[in-house]
Amino acid sequence: MLTELFTPSVQHALDLVGIFVFAISGALLAVRKNFDVFGIAVLAEVTALGGGLFRDVMIGAIPPAAFTDLGYFITPLFAAGLVFFLHPHVERIQVGVNVFDAAGLGLFCVTGTVKAYEYGLGLTSSAALGLATAVGGGVLRDVLANEVPSLLRWDRDLYAVPAIVGATTVVLCIRFDTLNAVTSGLAVIAAFVLRLLALRFHWRAPRAYNRSSARAEEGSAAT
Amino acid sequence: MLTELFTPSVQHALDLVGIFVFAISGALLAVRKNFDVFGIAVLAEVTALGGGLFRDVMIGAIPPAAFTDLGYFITPLFAAGLVFFLHPHVERIQVGVNVFDAAGLGLFCVTGTVKAYEYGLGLTSSAALGLATAVGGGVLRDVLANEVPSLLRWDRDLYAVPAIVGATTVVLCIRFDTLNAVTSGLAVIAAFVLRLLALRFHWRAPRAYNRSSARAEEGSAAT
Amino acid sequence: MLTELFTPSVQHALDLVGIFVFAISGALLAVRKNFDVFGIAVLAEVTALGGGLFRDVMIGAIPPAAFTDLGYFITPLFAAGLVFFLHPHVERIQVGVNVFDAAGLGLFCVTGTVKAYEYGLGLTSSAALGLATAVGGGVLRDVLANEVPSLLRWDRDLYAVPAIVGATTVVLCIRFDTLNAVTSGLAVIAAFVLRLLALRFHWRAPRAYNRSSARAEEGSAAT
Repeated sequence: MLTELFTPSVQHALDLVGIFVFAISGALLAVRKNFDVFGIAVLAEVTALGGGLFRDVMIGAIPPAAFTDLGYFITPLFAAGLVFFLHPHVERIQVGVNVFDAAGLGLFCVTGTVKAYEYGLGLTSSAALGLATAVGGGVLRDVLANEVPSLLRWDRDLYAVPAIVGATTVVLCIRFDTLNAVTSGLAVIAAFVLRLLALRFHWRAPRAYNRSSARAEEGSAAT
Repeated sequence: MLTELFTPSVQHALDLVGIFVFAISGALLAVRKNFDVFGIAVLAEVTALGGGLFRDVMIGAIPPAAFTDLGYFITPLFAAGLVFFLHPHVERIQVGVNVFDAAGLGLFCVTGTVKAYEYGLGLTSSAALGLATAVGGGVLRDVLANEVPSLLRWDRDLYAVPAIVGATTVVLCIRFDTLNAVTSGLAVIAAFVLRLLALRFHWRAPRAYNRSSARAEEGSAAT
Repeated sequence: MLTELFTPSVQHALDLVGIFVFAISGALLAVRKNFDVFGIAVLAEVTALGGGLFRDVMIGAIPPAAFTDLGYFITPLFAAGLVFFLHPHVERIQVGVNVFDAAGLGLFCVTGTVKAYEYGLGLTSSAALGLATAVGGGVLRDVLANEVPSLLRWDRDLYAVPAIVGATTVVLCIRFDTLNAVTSGLAVIAAFVLRLLALRFHWRAPRAYNRSSARAEEGSAAT
């Protein structure tokens, strides 16, 4: 039942869109870090496929979808090529990239949660793996680029929360037996819109309780 | 037989204690790095569960225990919450944290070795995976925080050696068929005490042979 | 058929040579980063075995060869010991290390591709995993040492291309049913020679299209 949320071809097309936009974000970071063309391709692949690879290894879906579906492997290379030739234009449309990335975030947190549940994991673990599917590629991207993962930094707009909301919505729907194409579509949209709002209004998560004080700010500036 | 070293509930309680103290160390580093509340939670989870996840993937225990036992997943969130609200106090009791972390190190190197052996690995590989269980989470924690893993640094007190001693004791007991609750408890205590002594007397491991010379020190200072 | 490319003992000896030279490169970086003796051993192990571990996890070869064959585990420790005591001499023969590393690159991209294909992956995925086998250990080495992976940097001589050529040659031979000891040996040699030529003539890959301009250089210098 769960596998028939969308028709397979719609599901596949949505996956490829998510992979494409995540790959763009990886390739853009590679250009900013002054990597060569292979570095751009590697970072595009890792950003696009890393979260799904992690999930598939954890749930035992071996070999992972990234290695069985040629489209999953080719799409990031296409994105890397686009960025390689057009990156000043791609950077100029950063707003567009952010919107697509938010769409990828929404899609992946929902499809990741559903796939983990189909492989027999519990509701909490499924939601955790949905979150990991959505944010894992970005974390790997930043680790390979030798930067602090932007997921963890307090000075970035909310990224985990929209994915947590999307994944939680899915497991609640599963719990109350109301998961279908409409409700899972709503979960995608909820995560997507939340992320856009966080970007628009620069919503941020709090740091540790006493860390917001002036003393902590100094400490932070000193490091 | 091996699975009955301790009663399941004792074993489970010990695991949760180890997970909790490792999570505290991850959350504290996240606060020092000025991460937001989600960064604190992610680093707590990764530090607490990373070593066990790596071991479970290597031995084929899929899905890993971290995703099948809700307590393993919740405990780090609890630790992250504690650090979030109380971190100046937690830092003040750094000595206490170090003692608990040493206990986690001792527990995990022993239980990791036993679990790897139960899944059919050889004695040397089991010891290696026991070591990886004990130190893997800390390495992942430092990589995500964009720091050189403290495990690898020469200016940190011995951390790998106690875990190696614990894991080696276990495989010797297995080899000579004397592994039971008492001997494995002794292995935990040996690793635990060794780590405490290393902390107390600042025992460190040597660097490469000619690296201790004045010339090398200069080179080190220059980098 | 594929498994009989070489006699098992020849295959095994070649694997150990590749593991040994990769371990040397890991241990040398550890010495340069001023790690202690355990850091040297860990970085030697990770560099030598990381690529193969990743491939084995992806194709479901669990437990990975690194944990079932004691020689795979011991060889990096031997390399770490050599570097620990002899590192000024090892550094002096950097040319020799580069030649061996090129040999390891050639061997691993071919054997990695063949193993992935034997486990049922498609041709493109097999080539991708052959590449990952060859370069994965080096990427993990650099991540653990908290450096930008030299694989991704534009100011390093071509490293991925020789491995891609070797892996592609293998899958073409499989496709046209001509893979045997001779053709796979030729694939190893092609990758090996290409890497040596890249080192000798400092062949590099292009950066993104507009990134080579003066403006970009300034931007790069400023970061």
